[in-house]
Amino acid sequence: MKTVLKSVFLTVIVTVFALFQWSCKQEKDVSTSTENVLEVLPSFNESTSKKNIIQFVETITDTASSDYVKPDDRIACFDNDGTLWVEQPLPSQIFFDLYRIKQLAVNHPEWKNEMPFKAVIENDTEALKTLSHGDLLNIVGTAQATDDVDSFDTIVNNWITSTKHPVMDKPYTKLIYKPMLELLDYLRANEFKIYIVSGGSQEFMRAWTNYVYGIPKEHVIGSTFKRKAITKGDSLIVAQTSEFEFNDDHEGKAIAISRYIGKKPILIAGNSDGDLEMMQYCDTNNPLPHLLIYVNHTDGDREFLYDEHTAMGTLNKGMEVALRKGWTIIDMKNDWKTVHSE
Amino acid sequence: MKTVLKSVFLTVIVTVFALFQWSCKQEKDVSTSTENVLEVLPSFNESTSKKNIIQFVETITDTASSDYVKPDDRIACFDNDGTLWVEQPLPSQIFFDLYRIKQLAVNHPEWKNEMPFKAVIENDTEALKTLSHGDLLNIVGTAQATDDVDSFDTIVNNWITSTKHPVMDKPYTKLIYKPMLELLDYLRANEFKIYIVSGGSQEFMRAWTNYVYGIPKEHVIGSTFKRKAITKGDSLIVAQTSEFEFNDDHEGKAIAISRYIGKKPILIAGNSDGDLEMMQYCDTNNPLPHLLIYVNHTDGDREFLYDEHTAMGTLNKGMEVALRKGWTIIDMKNDWKTVHSE
Repeated sequence: MKTVLKSVFLTVIVTVFALFQWSCKQEKDVSTSTENVLEVLPSFNESTSKKNIIQFVETITDTASSDYVKPDDRIACFDNDGTLWVEQPLPSQIFFDLYRIKQLAVNHPEWKNEMPFKAVIENDTEALKTLSHGDLLNIVGTAQATDDVDSFDTIVNNWITSTKHPVMDKPYTKLIYKPMLELLDYLRANEFKIYIVSGGSQEFMRAWTNYVYGIPKEHVIGSTFKRKAITKGDSLIVAQTSEFEFNDDHEGKAIAISRYIGKKPILIAGNSDGDLEMMQYCDTNNPLPHLLIYVNHTDGDREFLYDEHTAMGTLNKGMEVALRKGWTIIDMKNDWKTVHSE
Repeated sequence: MKTVLKSVFLTVIVTVFALFQWSCKQEKDVSTSTENVLEVLPSFNESTSKKNIIQFVETITDTASSDYVKPDDRIACFDNDGTLWVEQPLPSQIFFDLYRIKQLAVNHPEWKNEMPFKAVIENDTEALKTLSHGDLLNIVGTAQATDDVDSFDTIVNNWITSTKHPVMDKPYTKLIYKPMLELLDYLRANEFKIYIVSGGSQEFMRAWTNYVYGIPKEHVIGSTFKRKAITKGDSLIVAQTSEFEFNDDHEGKAIAISRYIGKKPILIAGNSDGDLEMMQYCDTNNPLPHLLIYVNHTDGDREFLYDEHTAMGTLNKGMEVALRKGWTIIDMKNDWKTVHSE
């Protein structure tokens, strides 16, 4: 009996020791060990940008660090066009607007003789090139006006699920940057609240950001057209007019973050001069550690080579400030193993 | 040996049966049993309003129900003044504004001879009563203008933590309705995303809603004054001007929900005619089940008796619609055991 007891005792000791070892291993598995660092952001090469991102996230989530940031304050703001998906030769929203104007033209025979709609209907690229900013806003506003904002998703999704990008010949939702999707996942896993802050129209994006990026409508901030309430008896519908209301670009992005979120973000990612002001806002008097990221379109083979040499998504002053301030720059050609999501 | 096997077999059967019973009991413990119904919302009497709320939440969280609503779509919008805290004899924000004007007057000697500031500085209640809507907006806008929106919290919190309500003689943060705090907790426990949608100034509320209601800044929607970006070298600060921008009341509340959230809520709670339009918006073409709640100020002993007989927080048309439509009405006097939080 004594031998049996001794044997049981030894078994218990061995088991407890094994459990202890296993438990320690488990702890190590969720730690900031080097092996794990290499497992996150798998579509990134081992670049400075990848190291900066991981080091930042590990620091601000480390409760023992003086740079620890509470989950409530982990606000990240991402530009959309050129930061999360393709924006050349034109922002994808514009292709939708052109399609939508042609669709609406069936009920507007007068547009055949009315600029800027005439140019759209006739695919007159020369005339389209000469349109003023006001003409473009007129096209976008008219294309996205709706008697019921809550039914607009269907119109956008009918287009986005049936149309291919004219140059890349792929659905727009496949022209999302895979490394950036991994970054969104990584931040979510670390309890960040992620917002889109884009110059694009808010309602156009809200139709698909949840199923494409996992970013819900209430976290999508964009340029807006004036809304109005339409009441009839006890019913009330919110319509979107064609009248431009708010330009969510440049200073507008800083103002929109203040208005919609009310907290200074700790991470901003963008790709153009239009994103500089929200980065400067994040960088000014921010008591929390923060990371500012520019995506630099250096890859003319797998995507588009642009930056200072483009009408849309110009990155010029932003790059000057980023280099001077030591912000994080993602070099698409050299830092990304894969560009697009599958 | 056969007997031993039989005995082991019986033991297994009994154990499995016992486990099954225990498991059923566990299920029952989190089910919609009557005993549990009585445990939530403890400051409510066993009223129709309490039953409606619990029945709604239990239905929309029941995956077996055809009325099940996914957590992503569990959006609830609460008015603030008169719904979550006191709003008589004036909305608390106004007391802050009057205090703030006097504080700012030190640097504005010209205000001594300038209306509406003269009336504020001199506590001239007769003159204050005759002020126009424009005068009031001028007072609120001037009181809440700031060179740096991100530093405004300190000013509001210095006041709110040091001042008592002139009639109730308690700190404003103790004049929160306890049953409504319990409702917020109950909804949060059931994965609702709770927003404030208030006619009050957004930045005034954002200073304290998180520590008082557990509602973070980014979920606070209110009336706004125009912001502007102030750049100096590489720095950018967002200032709030005194110029009124958006009235988050009546139709404005429906428009703000559409703009800030982009999803139709499934629960709205308010207390005045100013909340009717967001309820109507929620009630129009909503594919999801939804609950509309009016808090009715029937208790002149423990709080203030008002509704149709008041300049602020009037409930007249809203009550007519609510009664006709069978919306949920909380009768403060009869439905609440306790009115204020401790």
